[in-house]
Amino acid sequence: MSVKQIVLAARPSGMPDASVFRTENVELPPLQAGQVHIRGLYFSVDPYMRGRMNDAPSYIPPFQLNAPIEGAVVAEVLESQVMGYNPGDLITGGLLPWAMEAIVSAEAIKPIDTQSIPPSYYLGVLGSAGVTAYCGLVIIGRPKAGETVVVSGAAGAVGLVVGQIAKIMGCRVIGIAGSEEKIRQLKTEFGFDEAINYKTTPDMGAALAKACPKGIDIYFDNVGGTTTDAVFPLLNFQARVPVCGQISSYNDTATPPGPRILPQVVKRSILIQGFLVRYMKEYHAEAALHLTQWLKENKLKFAETVVEGFDRLPEAWLGLFSGQNMGKMIVKA
Amino acid sequence: MSVKQIVLAARPSGMPDASVFRTENVELPPLQAGQVHIRGLYFSVDPYMRGRMNDAPSYIPPFQLNAPIEGAVVAEVLESQVMGYNPGDLITGGLLPWAMEAIVSAEAIKPIDTQSIPPSYYLGVLGSAGVTAYCGLVIIGRPKAGETVVVSGAAGAVGLVVGQIAKIMGCRVIGIAGSEEKIRQLKTEFGFDEAINYKTTPDMGAALAKACPKGIDIYFDNVGGTTTDAVFPLLNFQARVPVCGQISSYNDTATPPGPRILPQVVKRSILIQGFLVRYMKEYHAEAALHLTQWLKENKLKFAETVVEGFDRLPEAWLGLFSGQNMGKMIVKA
Repeated sequence: MSVKQIVLAARPSGMPDASVFRTENVELPPLQAGQVHIRGLYFSVDPYMRGRMNDAPSYIPPFQLNAPIEGAVVAEVLESQVMGYNPGDLITGGLLPWAMEAIVSAEAIKPIDTQSIPPSYYLGVLGSAGVTAYCGLVIIGRPKAGETVVVSGAAGAVGLVVGQIAKIMGCRVIGIAGSEEKIRQLKTEFGFDEAINYKTTPDMGAALAKACPKGIDIYFDNVGGTTTDAVFPLLNFQARVPVCGQISSYNDTATPPGPRILPQVVKRSILIQGFLVRYMKEYHAEAALHLTQWLKENKLKFAETVVEGFDRLPEAWLGLFSGQNMGKMIVKA
Repeated sequence: MSVKQIVLAARPSGMPDASVFRTENVELPPLQAGQVHIRGLYFSVDPYMRGRMNDAPSYIPPFQLNAPIEGAVVAEVLESQVMGYNPGDLITGGLLPWAMEAIVSAEAIKPIDTQSIPPSYYLGVLGSAGVTAYCGLVIIGRPKAGETVVVSGAAGAVGLVVGQIAKIMGCRVIGIAGSEEKIRQLKTEFGFDEAINYKTTPDMGAALAKACPKGIDIYFDNVGGTTTDAVFPLLNFQARVPVCGQISSYNDTATPPGPRILPQVVKRSILIQGFLVRYMKEYHAEAALHLTQWLKENKLKFAETVVEGFDRLPEAWLGLFSGQNMGKMIVKA
């Protein structure tokens, strides 16, 4: 049986375009013991995938040329040679192929409960985005009621959750995002105290200083670059900076120089911690528990930007770099 | 009775010179209850004092113009109106005036045991330098046997202790310092595996890569600037960077731009922690216990650069910024 998949056609240099992907048809191998045959329903597109397109040593091996892109997927089981998985079950996995159907091993998947949770949430608020937000903000950032939290990429899947958790914990929350519509939603739908449009604000330092009269205690950084440059001078003594992403630099061929931050780090005893949620496994259960509870209590809302059509995976992924998504960008097959 | 003291005569801009200090004679006030009359024996000069010369908000108030410089001092009690302190006792305090004699309150001092420890060590290896080295390396850096530790300012009071503790803990240790004599001593006297002279090494990145074939797990930074720029690309996954000082920038009037480090921080889950030993009080007793033990067991050696004469305090302090000291710079009155 022949199925469509999307492979890495070429390693990009700088900003990628659609030519790095190729759609092709492949024959599925026969199903063997320990495997399930799945059909993809929802596919996650994530900025971190840019790093895997480079042929460089990293915490996770690079994508192979001419092999399918891998990422988080929610899928339906069509056939199963694994006890406990039956046709019709919904599953998720973090490293499943961009393929309309696939044969995968039992170790690559886990069942999901869709009784009260929309299936696609397992790619977002209950997937790595939500768990990343929790681990970065709560475990690394250690927010205390009354503190001021700034989050860049605030309208993204992670940022949206970070801001809401910070509010739940009693903090003043300022989001940075890139469109008036995002700014509006952050303030009216998601409870941010202030939100600043970095694309239209001429002096980010002044705008942040005005929004943060008591300085900044936690800066959750998804973006980096000049946005982060504007935040650093406002960090308080013993501020914490969980560094989740640096999307502004992922397509740089050379990193341009910027303000030196270590003099401020030492003067103000600042903590900076780059982190990957996969290396914080000891907190995943705690994160999932709290996130699920907050969702059920309506204290936490989520947003998704759903692109329809498997073939549009490349387009959706490329759209992340121009901020096309409010919340989690997802492709529905 | 008239005594000599050294006051801040002017706030420096950029690199200070002797004109920021003034020596003057003052009358000591009468000794009151709760006070002791001390005579300074050993005075500590420290890079961090540069920050207190600026009239800027900080973790510690700025020095007052026309008031004595304050710092760590070992002194002898001449007269006492405090139970438990008697003439002839040796004491130390972290915020005592640069004065040949002074009247100070009991809260500002503590007794020292000089049975087996030279008194001046309380300004160095058993003072804030040693405790800083311990807290930064052991508590923040969490060294594991077999890891590679790089320390900048390796021949300074803090760096010398950092490198030796790292050796005690089974690490490979590379020091960065600024003279051939320092390099020689680090390797032959203090057990560093390698030492690199940043003043004569044309390509620090290449020299570090050669000295650290397995990359760098902990970078203890006292210096910052281009030295640190060379270290960052070699940091391993989950590397730790305790930032103790940035002496290369203390006299900058504007911080020049440098390589952006956050893209590396996120890619390699790096921890950067600026710290001040005064805010890690819960570890001071543990640090003192280990440092004293290691000294007694001869596992830890120390070095001092002793400048003789109270009047030479300004000269000794200025000498820190051109690396005149091997180990702790001290003035013996």
